[in-house]
Amino acid sequence: MLTAHSVKILKSLDQKKFRQKYNLFLVEGNKIIKELANSDYETQEIFSTNPESLSFFKGKITEISPEQLRKISFLKTPKDSVAVCKLRKNALNKDISRQLILDGIQDPGNLGTMIRLADWFGIRQIVCSEDTADFYNPKVVQASMGSFLRVNVVYENLEHFLKNSARKNIGTDMSGTSVFKFNFPEKFNLIFGNEGNGIRPNIEKLLDEKLTIPRFGKHQFTESLNVSVAAGIVLGQAFLGSLLLINK
Amino acid sequence: MLTAHSVKILKSLDQKKFRQKYNLFLVEGNKIIKELANSDYETQEIFSTNPESLSFFKGKITEISPEQLRKISFLKTPKDSVAVCKLRKNALNKDISRQLILDGIQDPGNLGTMIRLADWFGIRQIVCSEDTADFYNPKVVQASMGSFLRVNVVYENLEHFLKNSARKNIGTDMSGTSVFKFNFPEKFNLIFGNEGNGIRPNIEKLLDEKLTIPRFGKHQFTESLNVSVAAGIVLGQAFLGSLLLINK
Repeated sequence: MLTAHSVKILKSLDQKKFRQKYNLFLVEGNKIIKELANSDYETQEIFSTNPESLSFFKGKITEISPEQLRKISFLKTPKDSVAVCKLRKNALNKDISRQLILDGIQDPGNLGTMIRLADWFGIRQIVCSEDTADFYNPKVVQASMGSFLRVNVVYENLEHFLKNSARKNIGTDMSGTSVFKFNFPEKFNLIFGNEGNGIRPNIEKLLDEKLTIPRFGKHQFTESLNVSVAAGIVLGQAFLGSLLLINK
Repeated sequence: MLTAHSVKILKSLDQKKFRQKYNLFLVEGNKIIKELANSDYETQEIFSTNPESLSFFKGKITEISPEQLRKISFLKTPKDSVAVCKLRKNALNKDISRQLILDGIQDPGNLGTMIRLADWFGIRQIVCSEDTADFYNPKVVQASMGSFLRVNVVYENLEHFLKNSARKNIGTDMSGTSVFKFNFPEKFNLIFGNEGNGIRPNIEKLLDEKLTIPRFGKHQFTESLNVSVAAGIVLGQAFLGSLLLINK
């Protein structure tokens, strides 16, 4: 049964403080929930309008009405099920050749999209500044489309981390070397800054290289690109390089 | 004065039918409003918490309180001002060498991001299927960051349009030629499909070339990339080609 008390707890999980208090987060939609069941995450309970569709899950399933689903879902168009999962603390893996570094990304949609992008390009770790959007925010989980299960997202003091990393620190900015003319090294930290303010000065100091995406449009007013779109373009170039190497 | 009646009308403008009924849409934030004032759009009135900041605007300005601003703004964190503008009907320009074609993009944030991306790469027109998200949706306007003023977004019957276009029709899909190995022609229609279902079969039939972004990650579950991120990667490759030509 879905009690009013449970609804209240589940709805509170859009806030980090309540996710941490209850040690829980939500995952929506059977497709991702199935991947979740095959992962290291512990699923505590699933609320579903269609329990028969969850035969892969051996734990507790509670049948709910579509109306109840709308009450606990964070989606505009709720899917079939909502899984309640225990938080896990990811540990930094120091042995990753190519990783993304996020310095203060605020928008959960951007973080989720970048996790999905990392997964696509086989990047296994994202190191975030401590003020980057929370990995367990329902919008991050949903925008990542299940990729949050495959990319190790950790939160670190970036200045300390980058100072002690043996990789080239490559930043992206409004000025610098054209990403279309740059030869990427085999190992790198690829750093993206906050949506409005870019990379912070203390992190900028640690860069070995600054890259920019040249603007082909002529309008002086054109804003910088959305950070996750910029990340896509830069990763495209980075992997184009490694593709050319493979083809040699 | 901001009357209750005005608030009701302004709030209704998040729906297409009311934008069309009143022939109005909203633009938020002084930065974009300033660009708007320099454009062909007609600004009917500006509501602002800081009228002094709008000295560039010679029309009607109504001072409102931050509380009133929160009532009429579609943003989570409202900016300084909200401009009420008259809709314009963009006309198809048949003389564009490189343009984006959107077949049923649903998410306003994706449409806005793709308008911003087009503007960055100097692409002056986006041709949308009639069921693509509405250009004047406040989320599109906001995500485009003012680029909606510089890119001509039109709605057409895509099948008819593509059949009669003299450009190469290049689609993006889960299979096809690797975008990293493809030489883009000088003139093209670059087609992106719906977030969930891709390009429709009747449009797919009209493609001269299908491109894909190879997946470097090894996980079989990885979802396709977000469509605006994919557009960034493909445009990066398209313009890399023209850059190499320029450098020859």
